Amino acid sequence: MGAGMSAPETLTASAAAEAIAAGRLTSEALVRACLGRIAARDEAVRAWAFLDADLALEAARAADRGPVRGPLHGVPVGLKDIIDTFDMPTACGSPIWSERRTYADSAAAALIRAAGGVILGKTVTTEFANRHPGPTRHPMDPARTPGGSSSGSAAAVGDGQVPLSLGTQTSGSLIRPAAYCGIWALKPSFGEASRVGVYRQSDSLDTLGWYGRCLDDVVRLRAVLLALPYAPVAAPESAPRLALCRSLHWAEAAPEAQAALEDAVARLSAAGAVIATLELPPALFADWEAVHGRIAGFEAARNMAHERHRAPDGLSATLRDGRLREGLELPFEGYVAAQRAAEAMRAWADEALADVDAVLTLPAPGEAPVGLAHTGSAAFNSLWTMLHTPCLSMPWARGPAGLPLGLQLVGARHEDERLCAAAAWVAERLRG
Amino acid sequence: MGAGMSAPETLTASAAAEAIAAGRLTSEALVRACLGRIAARDEAVRAWAFLDADLALEAARAADRGPVRGPLHGVPVGLKDIIDTFDMPTACGSPIWSERRTYADSAAAALIRAAGGVILGKTVTTEFANRHPGPTRHPMDPARTPGGSSSGSAAAVGDGQVPLSLGTQTSGSLIRPAAYCGIWALKPSFGEASRVGVYRQSDSLDTLGWYGRCLDDVVRLRAVLLALPYAPVAAPESAPRLALCRSLHWAEAAPEAQAALEDAVARLSAAGAVIATLELPPALFADWEAVHGRIAGFEAARNMAHERHRAPDGLSATLRDGRLREGLELPFEGYVAAQRAAEAMRAWADEALADVDAVLTLPAPGEAPVGLAHTGSAAFNSLWTMLHTPCLSMPWARGPAGLPLGLQLVGARHEDERLCAAAAWVAERLRG
Repeated sequence: MGAGMSAPETLTASAAAEAIAAGRLTSEALVRACLGRIAARDEAVRAWAFLDADLALEAARAADRGPVRGPLHGVPVGLKDIIDTFDMPTACGSPIWSERRTYADSAAAALIRAAGGVILGKTVTTEFANRHPGPTRHPMDPARTPGGSSSGSAAAVGDGQVPLSLGTQTSGSLIRPAAYCGIWALKPSFGEASRVGVYRQSDSLDTLGWYGRCLDDVVRLRAVLLALPYAPVAAPESAPRLALCRSLHWAEAAPEAQAALEDAVARLSAAGAVIATLELPPALFADWEAVHGRIAGFEAARNMAHERHRAPDGLSATLRDGRLREGLELPFEGYVAAQRAAEAMRAWADEALADVDAVLTLPAPGEAPVGLAHTGSAAFNSLWTMLHTPCLSMPWARGPAGLPLGLQLVGARHEDERLCAAAAWVAERLRG
Repeated sequence: MGAGMSAPETLTASAAAEAIAAGRLTSEALVRACLGRIAARDEAVRAWAFLDADLALEAARAADRGPVRGPLHGVPVGLKDIIDTFDMPTACGSPIWSERRTYADSAAAALIRAAGGVILGKTVTTEFANRHPGPTRHPMDPARTPGGSSSGSAAAVGDGQVPLSLGTQTSGSLIRPAAYCGIWALKPSFGEASRVGVYRQSDSLDTLGWYGRCLDDVVRLRAVLLALPYAPVAAPESAPRLALCRSLHWAEAAPEAQAALEDAVARLSAAGAVIATLELPPALFADWEAVHGRIAGFEAARNMAHERHRAPDGLSATLRDGRLREGLELPFEGYVAAQRAAEAMRAWADEALADVDAVLTLPAPGEAPVGLAHTGSAAFNSLWTMLHTPCLSMPWARGPAGLPLGLQLVGARHEDERLCAAAAWVAERLRG
């Protein structure tokens, strides 16, 4: 281990991968450092649902023995505990499945392993990636939520316990925790990352996504998870086409969040960007939260038929009497109408975003809120999930409690590479 | 058991459910009759991948002890062997998963059980619901394929071994076997029936569907699987709005298949229907088979990452060097272009079918072909799968070998109830 490697657990995944590929760091040393950080911090943060140090170290040593297999060779990754692995339990944050093991890896786990990555363990999820919280606390303030449902994945990356982790988003489960925990997240365009072996709430909404510590971290993981060649992102020389979207929920954002977004816009304008304003047509979007809820509820009530019928007492009242009951009570016509409304909104977004490289918007209403009973509001997330657009969150500012505020960039559907290039330009200018 | 119940295994599911609900038949007697038929015929047909008579009889007796829980109470159902059950293996037609067991029921299995249905066993699928065939033979001619990939499900219903079964369709895996085996099938609109616990090839295409012996059979099963109230379908008094679509593959159909479709059109016209002609715009649809193949291949190659990396030698050459290799070789831009092309075709179909209750078209190019190495052509199916439209196949005529020819009815997306009502009118007129 060379100079500057005294705390390898704090490296970005990219720096760690490069150090491993160059022989300056071993996967085993990195995994040991992560395990050390977890041992020191787990009582406070509680990010892990399953962790077997021997299993992780064995995988790390196997990576150290072999040739470099991919852009994340030797790098540990945490998986949200709704993502299957053949060698670890996947409990979905529910007492119903505390013993659940699967024969196969999820596609995501298999692709990570095939690229030389090391599955470190499973991170805490809210119950079935829904609202009922797990035990995880915000890494910078144990009285606050880290966000959810990808609670453990966000907290672990934010706390220096693992450089990369996987989460999912049906409402705001990936992007919001990233903003709260001060890390990077990429939710790719709907449909691009395989969901095989990932617990399913809603076929129409669930999207696999991931966390890292810099833009290149999430770009590398995208290449691995989409089984595409990795290429580093280069910021374009001239300013990307940006648009500010305050959304229909601007009034729900804290003043510091509003100010942080406006400040980013001012700095990027000063750096040469011409920033348009994107208004969501109020008539088309008036009902969007109900539309999202109807799709999610109708589908979850069917998808969770096994749990509803065989283990109803193992479900939280929040889930059973909330989303599942609502989904069962919704008439079929209401579901179809919601699907059609979502498609109409998506068609509008496809058109409106065609000439925009990145929409600048809030990833969350403010700093992580105090309290562990709720994981925060998805008001700034669920719409984009339903629109199937790629979403990226980056750390940007601090709020009055000293906690992170993020900046969300949203791209056109399937234009994730364009979005990441715009994010590179934005990040460079905001650092400057 | 009353008069006329001497062969309960030959009843429609509807007749069986009504007899059970009225106390004229027990689920146990029905299941015993099915098991008897299977014992007599299994050597010839080979439709079952897993069958445990004791388990099925136990479920039947439990149904007989309890109150009537749903419209299929006590009725046995076969599940394609890619559909999980907590109490049976699900081998996916692959040696890789010959021992695979899951903790949970698929949503479909759970919904069937919750409605009082009896899971009879698992039916043979081609390897991972793809092309490499299983051992199943056509029930009327053991030298012929029953079609695939839902081979065992179609053959078992066609042979009187079970009144209902579940299949899936990514290309033509549900509708084509129904036509070959002379039974009814319903592939609902994409997205409506939960796919949780169903082996996934392609998130964008895979659709759960099912077989029965009459229209009401598939309508009852739809109510159960969508967790909706059951209502019998009534044929409209006046003729539905019908359209004939010969498709772009008309020349690939056997003369007897062409004649059977034209004959149906003539009879329905004589019965008072005004039948329009639906032409697929050649420019928009010229490339549709390649578009379908690119989506299916790109997604399958990612979805099957576990099998590709951990058990490549357990995959057939057909699958490994065909769809999976093609999917890995396709550049990302090719996948995105294919998704956009499919969406454009779907938008056209939504418009073109808005005022059509049912499109009349072929479900297969002709009778089941001779040979067990291939399961037949999906040329008349994959387009509708990609368009996400509901598809229904009904038995209609016989070919020169005395084997069934079906009639396919296709509806507008999410208009499955309208499609079934039109099918009721069509079936009544064709019977007359």
